[in-house]
Amino acid sequence: MTAAVVALSGGVGGAKLALGLARVLEEAQLTVIVNTGDDFNHLGLAISPDLDTLVYTLAGLADPVQGWGRRDETWTFMSALEQLGGETWFRLGDADLAMHVERTQRLAAGETLSAVTDRLRRQLGIAARILPMSDDPVRTRLETDAGWLDFQDYFVRRRCAPRVRRLAFLGADTARPLPAVMTALSSEDLRAVVICPSNPFLSIEPILAIPAIRAALSDCRAPVIAVSPVIGGQAVRGPTTKIMRELGLGSGAADVARGYADLLDVFVMDEIDAATVVPAGVEVVSAPILMTSLEDRERLAGVVLAAADRVAARQN
Amino acid sequence: MTAAVVALSGGVGGAKLALGLARVLEEAQLTVIVNTGDDFNHLGLAISPDLDTLVYTLAGLADPVQGWGRRDETWTFMSALEQLGGETWFRLGDADLAMHVERTQRLAAGETLSAVTDRLRRQLGIAARILPMSDDPVRTRLETDAGWLDFQDYFVRRRCAPRVRRLAFLGADTARPLPAVMTALSSEDLRAVVICPSNPFLSIEPILAIPAIRAALSDCRAPVIAVSPVIGGQAVRGPTTKIMRELGLGSGAADVARGYADLLDVFVMDEIDAATVVPAGVEVVSAPILMTSLEDRERLAGVVLAAADRVAARQN
Repeated sequence: MTAAVVALSGGVGGAKLALGLARVLEEAQLTVIVNTGDDFNHLGLAISPDLDTLVYTLAGLADPVQGWGRRDETWTFMSALEQLGGETWFRLGDADLAMHVERTQRLAAGETLSAVTDRLRRQLGIAARILPMSDDPVRTRLETDAGWLDFQDYFVRRRCAPRVRRLAFLGADTARPLPAVMTALSSEDLRAVVICPSNPFLSIEPILAIPAIRAALSDCRAPVIAVSPVIGGQAVRGPTTKIMRELGLGSGAADVARGYADLLDVFVMDEIDAATVVPAGVEVVSAPILMTSLEDRERLAGVVLAAADRVAARQN
Repeated sequence: MTAAVVALSGGVGGAKLALGLARVLEEAQLTVIVNTGDDFNHLGLAISPDLDTLVYTLAGLADPVQGWGRRDETWTFMSALEQLGGETWFRLGDADLAMHVERTQRLAAGETLSAVTDRLRRQLGIAARILPMSDDPVRTRLETDAGWLDFQDYFVRRRCAPRVRRLAFLGADTARPLPAVMTALSSEDLRAVVICPSNPFLSIEPILAIPAIRAALSDCRAPVIAVSPVIGGQAVRGPTTKIMRELGLGSGAADVARGYADLLDVFVMDEIDAATVVPAGVEVVSAPILMTSLEDRERLAGVVLAAADRVAARQN
């Protein structure tokens, strides 16, 4: 089997499954389309948190405990910045900083975000393609009980405490999807599209908010499979279920499935959610979906690909 | 004695004497005018090596062995940058990087180099004023047997190996001296102007290449005193005597004195150079001028100030 697999991913949760997919697929079969709605400029540096998490994870450089940032990181820069009276609410490790400095100067020299990302992932020996959803800026903002907030202000500085009323993805309606994204999604050779277990609102929606990408997913010949980021009514990490409740949605795995229903062929949820009723027309696969070990990531990737192949076999 | 002292300085050698002066003078009596001809943009960051050396030295943060950069530095950023395929010929420590990032973003926001420098030295508790010679860019270039080179290309990347034929200080003739520099040099209250034992060509000449600063030094009512950066025909550090020979000048302390002759009242040279003949009209003070310990720095500062006071007493 040499067919291509496309994954849509945000940060930590999505990167775990992307790593599993990268390991069970042949080299270069995997393309990951990554959320850039969290990107921001901080201390004069262009920071792309989800792209970096994917790059670090697939290169084997990610911090194994927190999932984002780099392993064996040091924090001398932040201490010195604090001493100089600089802004310290967003913590940048010394090694991580190299990524932001290198990206910032390449963007300033006129390279695109996708070109910079591709150069860096090759440099780090990553076989999978890592594509920002667009080279045009899309910025996630949240209307909360504390007013409209930029994503990192909500997520890092305020630790997701404000109550969310509404989300907006500034620039998404006019952002041009990366040509390689459209090519990957319309490929004759496409085996599956995997919506990774990332936050549906903060990580996946910004990608789908680009109209051409949502349309390409709708029109896609290959099976579309989402993995739940929720187990037993609890988000594996982050504010997913808190936001679902604040938006007046249920906070179960099935409620996540409902959000994706018009796009999905298969929804993979945890065994403890197996009794949940998902929308008609979506096939449910139940499996252990908590990814703790590397083996968990590979096993779940296998479950997802097997489900895709079953759907494809039925359709042919 | 509450009168002001102005010092002209480049990096390491000059900063040693500036520290001595700062310690023997009352708080806020010292103003240091610093060379910015070495400044450059690297990795998208605005780097001012001599300003940083002054700031780190006067704040007690300088690396005590190499004299530039910070003590207790870590190098995680450089390792990561190398891994990403970035430029590594100019080594930036993790703590040092905080200075460059903070300065770069403040300059980008429209602050002047002098305002940024003043904010940072206050933040670090430095009483002395640290003034870039100008907020306008001046860039030292060297014509060598390898062609015209930017300063850092010559100094760091090529380790001063090319043979120097000529120096140019781009922008110096039109650079506006910092108003605070002109005020300091024309003060009624001025006790002395000290030309620190920095490289005359690479550190002091760029300052004097701004016509108004050279004129202010010529017209200055206070004694002007230079300290030799050369002992027994050898530069204490750096390429001073190498360049002097390449330019067809002698490489002794007296040859340094000749370069400054039209500005000087007193030239301080080492005891082993005491037999050297310096230009008429310049008083020679011989003293141990190698600054190894903190006490050496304070003692030499005392020698310099005593000489200035003797000249002033004679003139009054």
